[in-house]
Amino acid sequence: MTDTADYPSDDFYPEPTQPSGWLTDEDLAVVRAQLPLVYVDAVPVRVDDSGDVVAVGLLLRVNTQGVMTRALVSGRVMYHERLRDALLRHIEKDLGPVALPQVPPSPQPFTVAEYFPTPGITAFHDPRQHAVSLAYVVPVTGDCRPQQNALDLAWLTPEEACADDVQAEMMNGQGMLLKQAMAHVGRLP
Amino acid sequence: MTDTADYPSDDFYPEPTQPSGWLTDEDLAVVRAQLPLVYVDAVPVRVDDSGDVVAVGLLLRVNTQGVMTRALVSGRVMYHERLRDALLRHIEKDLGPVALPQVPPSPQPFTVAEYFPTPGITAFHDPRQHAVSLAYVVPVTGDCRPQQNALDLAWLTPEEACADDVQAEMMNGQGMLLKQAMAHVGRLP
Amino acid sequence: MTDTADYPSDDFYPEPTQPSGWLTDEDLAVVRAQLPLVYVDAVPVRVDDSGDVVAVGLLLRVNTQGVMTRALVSGRVMYHERLRDALLRHIEKDLGPVALPQVPPSPQPFTVAEYFPTPGITAFHDPRQHAVSLAYVVPVTGDCRPQQNALDLAWLTPEEACADDVQAEMMNGQGMLLKQAMAHVGRLP
Amino acid sequence: MTDTADYPSDDFYPEPTQPSGWLTDEDLAVVRAQLPLVYVDAVPVRVDDSGDVVAVGLLLRVNTQGVMTRALVSGRVMYHERLRDALLRHIEKDLGPVALPQVPPSPQPFTVAEYFPTPGITAFHDPRQHAVSLAYVVPVTGDCRPQQNALDLAWLTPEEACADDVQAEMMNGQGMLLKQAMAHVGRLP
Repeated sequence: MTDTADYPSDDFYPEPTQPSGWLTDEDLAVVRAQLPLVYVDAVPVRVDDSGDVVAVGLLLRVNTQGVMTRALVSGRVMYHERLRDALLRHIEKDLGPVALPQVPPSPQPFTVAEYFPTPGITAFHDPRQHAVSLAYVVPVTGDCRPQQNALDLAWLTPEEACADDVQAEMMNGQGMLLKQAMAHVGRLP
Repeated sequence: MTDTADYPSDDFYPEPTQPSGWLTDEDLAVVRAQLPLVYVDAVPVRVDDSGDVVAVGLLLRVNTQGVMTRALVSGRVMYHERLRDALLRHIEKDLGPVALPQVPPSPQPFTVAEYFPTPGITAFHDPRQHAVSLAYVVPVTGDCRPQQNALDLAWLTPEEACADDVQAEMMNGQGMLLKQAMAHVGRLP
Repeated sequence: MTDTADYPSDDFYPEPTQPSGWLTDEDLAVVRAQLPLVYVDAVPVRVDDSGDVVAVGLLLRVNTQGVMTRALVSGRVMYHERLRDALLRHIEKDLGPVALPQVPPSPQPFTVAEYFPTPGITAFHDPRQHAVSLAYVVPVTGDCRPQQNALDLAWLTPEEACADDVQAEMMNGQGMLLKQAMAHVGRLP
Repeated sequence: MTDTADYPSDDFYPEPTQPSGWLTDEDLAVVRAQLPLVYVDAVPVRVDDSGDVVAVGLLLRVNTQGVMTRALVSGRVMYHERLRDALLRHIEKDLGPVALPQVPPSPQPFTVAEYFPTPGITAFHDPRQHAVSLAYVVPVTGDCRPQQNALDLAWLTPEEACADDVQAEMMNGQGMLLKQAMAHVGRLP
């Protein structure tokens, strides 16, 4: 759930309801110890002509401990931002501007991942915070290029993505979330 | 739930598992009095860039009593046919070959419509048969043209599609199913 | 989305991960202008032996303007609280300790209501804040008694609950959410 | 998907719409080669006070080859029978009359299992037929006793139920369906 540089640019929300200032990093740190944050998780997939999932896109990153990790598209929902706009923003942030995602027409997520700062309460864990993340499978049809802090974007078959070696490279329970997504689309190996 | 001409052509399923003969109309009539049939209902929609539904496609037909009716895409699932293939086949049959439907990656329908030959058991009624229909919202991005027995395909806003006058033109509870679809996508007026 | 007296008692979360102090009212007011808050909405229902919904429970309250309103069970998810525990807490707070709610086994909500401080962005509006609310239908089998600031709890049929006069008494889009719940359970009139 | 003795007794459906005769075994055999049949699959679970799944109930049977197998509750939907009534009937048939199942208020299944007579098209396979099965997680709160052809009903933790040895005893892809159910309730190991 990396959301470094998670803030939209200043002119992203010109609505009059925008707060005078976004949260500073210090304010966010304080809030994170007091409230659950709203997140979205997107599982980017390639589908065939009949909508059947044929591949899953995973981001390859090096985390702060220097370890290679694989990740889903994930990030915070901003104040006054719709879930579908947050999904689009994070997908564009991670997969580039021409990924052509098909955000689902319904807001019903396939599951909700509850990331707790304490391990063991759910399958999800985030040492930084308590996050409630709405998870969606999002077909992408365009050209995807890893952005920012990602080294690569790899397309794996559902079988590969659920294999132990790949699962071991996913942090905070995202491997579980990926398996839940594959179960939802009928492609759990 | 008009499925006249519902049979695929003879070469549609060349699999070895295909039964030697499809059901004749007489056989189908007999079976319809003895077993629930598997159907799919598709609600064709146009979505904006963020996946939000902006229009619903309804087929305009004249029924056997000479009355103008509006209908969703609906039809039977054939022996040895996957649900997603049945969806594609019926969408192509009703909206033409270049509708470019985005069949959802998950088989989870937004609801199941139980059409009973007896009115009043559920909101759905089909005097011909007991049908269990899995219902999906299907974004279409291509050029849609009514085929076969449909006079027209009209794109209505969710508000228009749920209005009393349009609802009155929908048969067998399909108006209800349309409203359930709009509720699912967060666009019930 | 009334959540007056929304805080659990001091001994509710004795975990070591609890922050040293809950948010004060002042702190919450500040945060509300900067972050979306996580909420749950529960639609309490009575079901028959086959699980079919026969009645919906609505709370009758007088709001701060002295107007009679009807409401669903709704409230904030606290830091370090699971969604299902938040559902139970708010149901107990509003329906009493012996309502015997059947919280669904899956965290998948039937929809997500996005309450915006600005009207018109979604069907949901909350002048106080941006709230992202996960909505569940929750059968209750026990004895329900309105608590705290509610005058009464009325059990209405789905038809009555969706009627214009009742809908007019529901605030912030909760009438819409109720109709979405009825659509989900196949009981939209 | 054992449905031996799957027929309700003669007085089960006294409605006037009942066909003059139920399908004989010979007729059913013919139909099975021509049409997909409608099934329901129920995953019986025990839940704790907050609705979290703590155990899964699996039926222990000896199949026609003399092999011990574990199975979910599964069976055909009859003509003129509602899905929720079919669920109740099959649960009572397999778990006894005082299992006290909580059939979900919504007809939306967590997935649809497409059992094909040809292996490999989906994860589900039934050599007898093409069945389209709507799958539900059903909490049961009463006393469950295996009926008829089952030797035992075992309550396993989600971890045990998803373990390789138990999965190997489940036929036709029901092990997969069980894992999909656990993914849906957030309890996939």
